[in-house]
Amino acid sequence: MNKSRIEAFSDGVLAIIITIMVLELKAPEGHQLGDLLRNWPKFLAYVISFVYVGIYWNNHHHLFVTVKRISGAVMWANLHLLFWLSLLPVLTAWAGESHFAAVPMGVYALDLLLCGVAFALLQQAIIRADPGNTLLADAVEGGLREKLSTGAYIVAALLPLFGLPGVYLSGLLLIGVALMWIVPDRRIERVLADGGRHDRS
Amino acid sequence: MNKSRIEAFSDGVLAIIITIMVLELKAPEGHQLGDLLRNWPKFLAYVISFVYVGIYWNNHHHLFVTVKRISGAVMWANLHLLFWLSLLPVLTAWAGESHFAAVPMGVYALDLLLCGVAFALLQQAIIRADPGNTLLADAVEGGLREKLSTGAYIVAALLPLFGLPGVYLSGLLLIGVALMWIVPDRRIERVLADGGRHDRS
Amino acid sequence: MNKSRIEAFSDGVLAIIITIMVLELKAPEGHQLGDLLRNWPKFLAYVISFVYVGIYWNNHHHLFVTVKRISGAVMWANLHLLFWLSLLPVLTAWAGESHFAAVPMGVYALDLLLCGVAFALLQQAIIRADPGNTLLADAVEGGLREKLSTGAYIVAALLPLFGLPGVYLSGLLLIGVALMWIVPDRRIERVLADGGRHDRS
Amino acid sequence: MNKSRIEAFSDGVLAIIITIMVLELKAPEGHQLGDLLRNWPKFLAYVISFVYVGIYWNNHHHLFVTVKRISGAVMWANLHLLFWLSLLPVLTAWAGESHFAAVPMGVYALDLLLCGVAFALLQQAIIRADPGNTLLADAVEGGLREKLSTGAYIVAALLPLFGLPGVYLSGLLLIGVALMWIVPDRRIERVLADGGRHDRS
Repeated sequence: MNKSRIEAFSDGVLAIIITIMVLELKAPEGHQLGDLLRNWPKFLAYVISFVYVGIYWNNHHHLFVTVKRISGAVMWANLHLLFWLSLLPVLTAWAGESHFAAVPMGVYALDLLLCGVAFALLQQAIIRADPGNTLLADAVEGGLREKLSTGAYIVAALLPLFGLPGVYLSGLLLIGVALMWIVPDRRIERVLADGGRHDRS
Repeated sequence: MNKSRIEAFSDGVLAIIITIMVLELKAPEGHQLGDLLRNWPKFLAYVISFVYVGIYWNNHHHLFVTVKRISGAVMWANLHLLFWLSLLPVLTAWAGESHFAAVPMGVYALDLLLCGVAFALLQQAIIRADPGNTLLADAVEGGLREKLSTGAYIVAALLPLFGLPGVYLSGLLLIGVALMWIVPDRRIERVLADGGRHDRS
Repeated sequence: MNKSRIEAFSDGVLAIIITIMVLELKAPEGHQLGDLLRNWPKFLAYVISFVYVGIYWNNHHHLFVTVKRISGAVMWANLHLLFWLSLLPVLTAWAGESHFAAVPMGVYALDLLLCGVAFALLQQAIIRADPGNTLLADAVEGGLREKLSTGAYIVAALLPLFGLPGVYLSGLLLIGVALMWIVPDRRIERVLADGGRHDRS
Repeated sequence: MNKSRIEAFSDGVLAIIITIMVLELKAPEGHQLGDLLRNWPKFLAYVISFVYVGIYWNNHHHLFVTVKRISGAVMWANLHLLFWLSLLPVLTAWAGESHFAAVPMGVYALDLLLCGVAFALLQQAIIRADPGNTLLADAVEGGLREKLSTGAYIVAALLPLFGLPGVYLSGLLLIGVALMWIVPDRRIERVLADGGRHDRS
């Protein structure tokens, strides 16, 4: 099996996810600046989700640079990741519309946790599909950032249960995790640089 | 004619179908956990349809690996398959909204049956377009899984007419067919392995 | 300039146009078969538009097989074609919702006429961008089918002004034109076969 | 890193942006010509936004022809551009629905200004990622058109504050900028012609 169609399909799904979120940002009813500004929670939720999908696209791109062989398990692990990502638009809309109420915030963080788990499973499936590919295996070893984000997502999913300050802290945690991931996986870049050129040319 | 644009177009349509289904999962009105959980039929319908579109993408990918030459008939057979798949989002929403009422369930199963028929017609068109390609012809011979699914779809389309237990059975049948297809076509993989490398490199 | 990105972008837009039309086919309110069947005009309009977009994709694919060099004018001629095609979803919904009232039918036929004109302009722009490419120039010479369709679109846009029989005739004309175009441009295929292999491999 | 996936992802997002704008052009309620014509501001806003997204796709295409090496910064600069472009559909709908009221017009022009700034930042990121690529550096030097458009966007964002004539002038300015950009960057084409062939073949 070759990887170009799985990349094309994932690019398509991620491009649609990142773009249909904007459909939830309905045009304000009134025509004054205040009508626009009153929508700030929906806009903020849109920005955060846009950045998260951007991060996943970026890391997906980096991940598949290392891939030479895929299996049926990789395909399903990839669809599993896309499934949890596909829920982001509706959960973004829910969190924004509710002005970041406790339950929508917690469910939003939970979905990000499941995306993170799905990404880790995808990495494992890729390593199992091609045991000779030590590049990725070396690169994901350790994984401090993954552990930190997993912990942060769990805390961010539970914090909103403790009233308004919890919601604020939860939001800050999710923004913090996003900032931590804006730089893509240097480990893969470094290992790739060591191991030679593995780009599709 | 070359196959890369038909693959790209199909990937695009399948990526959009799988992603716009989530637009029907509207954000709940209230902001409690109960408001989310009350939507379980829509969520379950979304999961099942997501898996079905994933299966079709997977098998479409496998099918076209074997293809070297396409014809106008292949193009229309492919569009015919995409047509029935394109109805899945609206039928998924109908089945979910109705909490799996008899008619929406039956129509949903009927559409899956028509997708299956369209896939078989596409296989035939591909074989006719390139009679020298014995790989696919060998691979689809027999086709126990196809026959089992066709039967299951027909039964699943009729069962809901027999009251609530029929609806449950119908749902179980459709989930069973999906599970049966999660592993993509081993026959093509095996024949490909025997016949050498036929991947796009 | 190379043609692969213009093809990829056009495939993307056509895939989205063909798929978002289904969003207008809202799930019926009730859960009986009658609720579904009452939507027949929307479904029929969807089928016709799906076939038309399929025809345009098909012919666009054939057209670009002949292309070796593109210019800025080709890009804009291509966007011009996509513009008129992009109106099909909303006009399809209008024609279907109105149960094929006179004005929506006439406007729908008018949009198809403009798509046809835009396709002819795109062919001209491609020929001008690469005068050495005699393949396409030979292939489009004559063009009986184009003339017939242009005439049919004009008649179909005017007929609905003459009451209900006019609407029926207009619909039949549009279906007839679609049937006439289901077979893609044999002339290009023939010329290509004569002139050697011009596929992207 | 290779550029083909960043191009594919951008093509996908731009194709979706340009196409979902049409979803805001809802089918008119009535079935008379007057019902359609009453929607002219939404249609005009759609045409202008369609042309703007077309221009950005065109220039994005030209820009990446010169690119040989990309970095993480280029990826984020590209996502930043896509972010502001992704707001066009909802702002187009707002401007059209309000029949070009002052605030929606000003915000629309502001978003176009931010798109222009993001495009300039993307050019800078590309130049920094590959300092050896003097092609683009030479091409963007000077940049009269960029300066003119930046000024025009700022004026167009402020003009609507001065009543109805300001709104008309603002609209004319935005149409003028679009016309100025319909011809893609000749400088890149010229430099490319001088510097040899840099197309993806």
